[in-house]
Amino acid sequence: MRDVCVVGIGTTRYGRHDQQARELMASAAEAAIEDAGIDPERIGNAFFGNAFSVAEKQGHLGPLIMSALGLPETPATAVEAACASGGTAFHHGYREVAGGFADAVLVGGVERVSMLDTLTATTYFSYGSDYTFEGGNGCSFPGLYATMARAYFERYGATEEDLAAVAVKSHENATHNPVAHLQKRITVDDVMSSMKVADPLKLYDACPFSDGAAAAVLTTTDVAKDLGAVPIHVDGSARSGTVASLHDRDDLTTIPGTRRAAQAALAQAKARIADMDFLEVHDCFTIAEVVATEDLGLFKPGEGAKAAVEGRTRIGGELPVNPSGGLKAKGHPVGATGAGQVVEVVEQLRGEAGGRQVDGARRALTHNVGATGGTVVVNILSRRD
Amino acid sequence: MRDVCVVGIGTTRYGRHDQQARELMASAAEAAIEDAGIDPERIGNAFFGNAFSVAEKQGHLGPLIMSALGLPETPATAVEAACASGGTAFHHGYREVAGGFADAVLVGGVERVSMLDTLTATTYFSYGSDYTFEGGNGCSFPGLYATMARAYFERYGATEEDLAAVAVKSHENATHNPVAHLQKRITVDDVMSSMKVADPLKLYDACPFSDGAAAAVLTTTDVAKDLGAVPIHVDGSARSGTVASLHDRDDLTTIPGTRRAAQAALAQAKARIADMDFLEVHDCFTIAEVVATEDLGLFKPGEGAKAAVEGRTRIGGELPVNPSGGLKAKGHPVGATGAGQVVEVVEQLRGEAGGRQVDGARRALTHNVGATGGTVVVNILSRRD
Repeated sequence: MRDVCVVGIGTTRYGRHDQQARELMASAAEAAIEDAGIDPERIGNAFFGNAFSVAEKQGHLGPLIMSALGLPETPATAVEAACASGGTAFHHGYREVAGGFADAVLVGGVERVSMLDTLTATTYFSYGSDYTFEGGNGCSFPGLYATMARAYFERYGATEEDLAAVAVKSHENATHNPVAHLQKRITVDDVMSSMKVADPLKLYDACPFSDGAAAAVLTTTDVAKDLGAVPIHVDGSARSGTVASLHDRDDLTTIPGTRRAAQAALAQAKARIADMDFLEVHDCFTIAEVVATEDLGLFKPGEGAKAAVEGRTRIGGELPVNPSGGLKAKGHPVGATGAGQVVEVVEQLRGEAGGRQVDGARRALTHNVGATGGTVVVNILSRRD
Repeated sequence: MRDVCVVGIGTTRYGRHDQQARELMASAAEAAIEDAGIDPERIGNAFFGNAFSVAEKQGHLGPLIMSALGLPETPATAVEAACASGGTAFHHGYREVAGGFADAVLVGGVERVSMLDTLTATTYFSYGSDYTFEGGNGCSFPGLYATMARAYFERYGATEEDLAAVAVKSHENATHNPVAHLQKRITVDDVMSSMKVADPLKLYDACPFSDGAAAAVLTTTDVAKDLGAVPIHVDGSARSGTVASLHDRDDLTTIPGTRRAAQAALAQAKARIADMDFLEVHDCFTIAEVVATEDLGLFKPGEGAKAAVEGRTRIGGELPVNPSGGLKAKGHPVGATGAGQVVEVVEQLRGEAGGRQVDGARRALTHNVGATGGTVVVNILSRRD
C-alpha cells in the first residue's frame, strides 16, 4: 500500500443554497483543487457521496460534476450509503491512491434538500432506513434515534438534560465556524423547551436539514512533496456494517459497526483512541454523539452522557468532540457530511481553524454513520512534520 | 496488482418481478456465492449497482442486501452511474481485489422498476440524462438516442432497416437464453411496423424496462485454486467519461468515452479487439450497438450498421455481438445490466451457454454505458487453462 495524504480541501457554507447539487459539488471541488495547487488533469478518478439528488430529479452525478469541472473524461463514481455517503467516497478514494490505481483522486459529497418542505425531506431521509419495516411504518430517523435514546436512558439513568449539554457544546463550537449552518449559542433551557420531535428527543437534539458540499484531493506523499503542500496523512480508513434494522439488534445502546470500524482504523494507524487530539463524530442527534464516543472507546458504556455535562468534550477539554459544531450545529448536508468531517480535520491539523482551533492538534479521527449504523466509516488523519 | 478472476456467478431471470430490489439482489448474490463454493465470511467487501431504488422508497441498499444475506458486518457500497451502475460495481470490486484490499469481493447490480407505469419509468430513467437541459425539456432517452441515430443516418446513409437487423439478431439470440426478458423471434417487418417512439427509433429498436439482478464473486487466482474453481480471468477493466450532455459534443455519431475505455482495457489485456471471441455491448437502442461496435474498433465508422444486415455479428458470424440477446432482448434491469454482461461472458467462457454458445470462446469484452456515454466501463475476461 502506498502512503496517502490530503493536499487540498474545499467546502461550501452549510445551510440553504439555490444552486443545484452539481454546482455546489463543483464549487467545493474547484476550491479543493486550487487549494492543492494540482493540475486537474493529474486527477485520475473521483468519488462523490450523495443520497437524495432524486429530489432535484437528477441521477448520474459523477459525469455531470466532472463535466461542470471541465474534466469530462475523468471517470467519477457516485456512491450512496445514506448519511455515510461522503465518508464512503473518501474511503474509496483513499484506496484508489493506496492501491496504485491513481496518483491523485478527488473525493467529496453533496446534498441539496432544503427546497423540500420538512415532511417531504423527512420522508426522503427515511428511505435511508429499512423503509419496509421502519420509515414506511412511520418510524423515521427521529423515531429510530429516540428509540435508542430511550434504551440508553433506561439502562444508564441518563437524562434529557445530559443530552442537552451535548447540543449546547456543539452550538458553542459552531459560533466559531464560518461555514456552519447554525451559528447561534443556545442554553440547556433552550433545548429543554424546544418542541418534542420524538420523545425524548426535541428539536434542539436534532441536526438541521442542510445543503452543502465538501471536497478533498488525495494523493501520494511523493506528489504532495512536488506540490509543496503540507501533507495531512491518512493513517487509517476502515468500514464496517451493522445489521440494517433496529429490530434485528440485541442492544440499542451501541452501534457495533462503529466499534469494528474504529478498531480496524486504529490498528492501521497503530494508535489508541486516547492518542487522538480530537474527534469529529456522527451526531445526527445528541444521543448519537453519546453512543459514538462510547463505541469509539473514549468513554465506558454509560459514561458518555455525562461527558458533555462535565465539559470533557468541549474545546480545551480532555478530548474535544466535534469542534466544527458537528452535524448538530455545523449542519448535515447528508452526502457531504463525511467529506466535511475530513475538511474540518485538515483545517485543524493545519492550525487554520480560528476560534475553534484545538491547540496543537496533530492527529484526529472522523466517524461517519449511515442510517442507524448499517454503514460506519472511520478515518484517522495526522500531521507528521 | 494482483491477478483477479471471477469464480462465481448468479442471476435472476430478467423481466417482471414482485420481490423488492434487496430480495432480487440477495437471490443473485446467494447463487454467485454458492457457485463459487466460497465461505461467505471470506468476502471482504461488496459493491452493488443500482439507479432507481427510490422507486420503491428505499436507499442504503448496501447494508440492506448484506443483512438479507446474513452478512451484516461486511461493508457494501451502492454505486450509481445510471445504466453503467453494474459495470461500475464490477470495476471497483476488481480493484479491491487487485489492490490487495480484499481477497474476495461480491459485486452485482439490481433494478426493479416494472411496477411503475411506462410514463413514470421513462421519467425516472430521464433523471440519468442531464435533466436540466435534456430530460426536463422532454428529451428522454429515446429522444437522445434518436438524435444520435439521425446524425448517423445523415452522415453514413444508413437506414431504419439496417437498425432493424440488429434487433432481429438480438431477439434470435435471446430465444436461447433462459433468463432473457424477451424470448421471442422477430422479423425486420415486425420492427418496421412497430410504434414510433422517437423518430427514427421504433418500439422494437428499444430495450424493455426489466427487473432483475446479477452478481459475481471476484477473487485472486490463489483463492480460486483453493476453491477448485475454473477461474475466468479479468485481463482488463477500465473506465472513461464523456461530456455529459449531447449538446456539448462535436459529433453525435460516436461516444468518445467508449474509445478511451476500450483502448485502456485492451492495453491492460495486451490484446486487440479482433482477439475477442465475442462482445457484450450496451445496446439500449439498436443505434447504440452500431455506434459501440465502431467505437470499440470492430468496424470502421459508418460500417457498423451493415454488419448485422450481413450477419457478421450473429452467433457463428465473424465476431458475435450480444449472444445473450443484449439489453435489447435479454433485457435492461438498469443497475444490473453491466454485472449481467459479466455473467454472460463467464457462462460462455465456461462453455455453459447452451443454444447461444459461441464455439470455443476463450476471451470476451463487456461494454456498459451510463446515459449517453457520461460513464463507460469496459471489462475484458478470458479463460487461460
